[in-house]
Amino acid sequence: MKQITIAIHGGAGPDSRLIRENQDGIKQGLASSLQKGYDILEKGGSSVEAVEAAVAEMENNPLFNAGRGAALNRHGETELEASIMNGHTLGCGAVALVKKVKNPVKLARVVMEHTNHILIAGPAAYEFAVDQNVELETDEYFITEERWKEFMEQKDKASAADLLRQPHHGTIGAVAMDKNGHLAAATSTGGTGNHLPGRIADVAMIGCGCYANDLTCAVSGTGDGEQLVHTVLAHSIAAVIRHTKCTIQNACDIMVPLKRKDMTADVGVIAVGPAGDIGCTFNCERMPRASMGTNIPMQVKIYR
Amino acid sequence: MKQITIAIHGGAGPDSRLIRENQDGIKQGLASSLQKGYDILEKGGSSVEAVEAAVAEMENNPLFNAGRGAALNRHGETELEASIMNGHTLGCGAVALVKKVKNPVKLARVVMEHTNHILIAGPAAYEFAVDQNVELETDEYFITEERWKEFMEQKDKASAADLLRQPHHGTIGAVAMDKNGHLAAATSTGGTGNHLPGRIADVAMIGCGCYANDLTCAVSGTGDGEQLVHTVLAHSIAAVIRHTKCTIQNACDIMVPLKRKDMTADVGVIAVGPAGDIGCTFNCERMPRASMGTNIPMQVKIYR
Repeated sequence: MKQITIAIHGGAGPDSRLIRENQDGIKQGLASSLQKGYDILEKGGSSVEAVEAAVAEMENNPLFNAGRGAALNRHGETELEASIMNGHTLGCGAVALVKKVKNPVKLARVVMEHTNHILIAGPAAYEFAVDQNVELETDEYFITEERWKEFMEQKDKASAADLLRQPHHGTIGAVAMDKNGHLAAATSTGGTGNHLPGRIADVAMIGCGCYANDLTCAVSGTGDGEQLVHTVLAHSIAAVIRHTKCTIQNACDIMVPLKRKDMTADVGVIAVGPAGDIGCTFNCERMPRASMGTNIPMQVKIYR
Repeated sequence: MKQITIAIHGGAGPDSRLIRENQDGIKQGLASSLQKGYDILEKGGSSVEAVEAAVAEMENNPLFNAGRGAALNRHGETELEASIMNGHTLGCGAVALVKKVKNPVKLARVVMEHTNHILIAGPAAYEFAVDQNVELETDEYFITEERWKEFMEQKDKASAADLLRQPHHGTIGAVAMDKNGHLAAATSTGGTGNHLPGRIADVAMIGCGCYANDLTCAVSGTGDGEQLVHTVLAHSIAAVIRHTKCTIQNACDIMVPLKRKDMTADVGVIAVGPAGDIGCTFNCERMPRASMGTNIPMQVKIYR
């Protein structure tokens, strides 16, 4: 059997009560999402199918900030965002400011495979989802008790101007290599709690929060979105591999900025290279993550 | 006096009647936009101010597909998109699906300098513009006779599914180096004629249609947006310079794909490096463009 690999993450950032109190659930969620993607790869499925399935499973799990359980914006609504990239064809697709779509990553894949657009946002993304028979859910489906409480606590605390200055984070993602050596990456998010409606983050920007190219690597990034965009992080990792031939782990370590006193950005990445080798780096307290490959036993971790 | 440089483009693509019949007007528009940016640099202004002013001037000119004169979407409306990046700070800002904002590039700069967001889209971008006292115009202001005729001719010709498969292009942009050696890039577009509302292109994706970093270069890309995103074009040019130390012109030539029989994508870029050297490449019939620097006389061209 040819080698296969998959790695997933549930978002880099500071530790929180939600995470501490749900460590077992988060680890179980990571393991079952990973397994879902791995099973597809093992049966000969493509890396695109595998990352889509793994991310959709996390979108369905209310413990992760994507799909069901996504953070609520300033209007108490979910605004979802996802992207996917095929490292073999360099095809990519993304959706943003999406409501009612159960699995934004699946809609991103439809954009990638059935349109000549890259990013469709807002009501148009919803209409496109309806047109393409993508599964929908009520607005209530996405809102968990925990997120509603968070919204009610935060809603009057900051002005619009304050919110515009807040960093934003909270993302999930997956990268994989299939039996044919093809790579893929997918990323999905619900945004930061209490964010301004209309804000689109790094997730939808191909090259920042998501990138895949069979020649170099597939990357899913997470953390403070602004930092991922400044550095065009996912593509930077691919570029350093392309031009310097360093290892995947090395490339992740070089490109994820260390925390300094004057820099508060939380950043993390997972990556997989053409030999099925995994890279994983984060500069903050936690990045729930899991990985598995033909010769790599399953690993599931939250903290360092 | 320390060296200064500015280069601008009015969009790469196939030749058209609109362009052939307006060659003098387009050249005059390019020259006066270039001059506007150059004057700022000469007086010691920053590269960010210069690219903003040059792009705003083209947005005001109905001969370019951005701001006034932008292509109309399937609903006969303008949906504007712009981005800007500061190569000194790596700060960046973008807006998409914007209506009524006279100069989207100015709103992108406000996003960059006064928020912690990167991309604000749709009605939220309009509300933000109102909040920040950015200049507004009526919807009618943006619609030229030529664009309305184009809309009326095309509007019933393609289904939504056809439109989703159409490539899209039409962009303007500027890159500059100021007296302090700081670089900046800005890009702006009205999208393709008859595009589906809700489509966001490469322009708003930092690293694809716009990128600036004092260490390598500032780039503004144009052409078929999808191709610019697949290749994360602007950042790819910066990365090849960073890792191989090749010249700006060389990097542009390496990264802009040559046309092949199986590849129809039109792509073009302008770039400026830390020594004030200019790069410019396009693989299609025309890319209206102009450039000028301390030791570089003004050049204004449309075709090869």
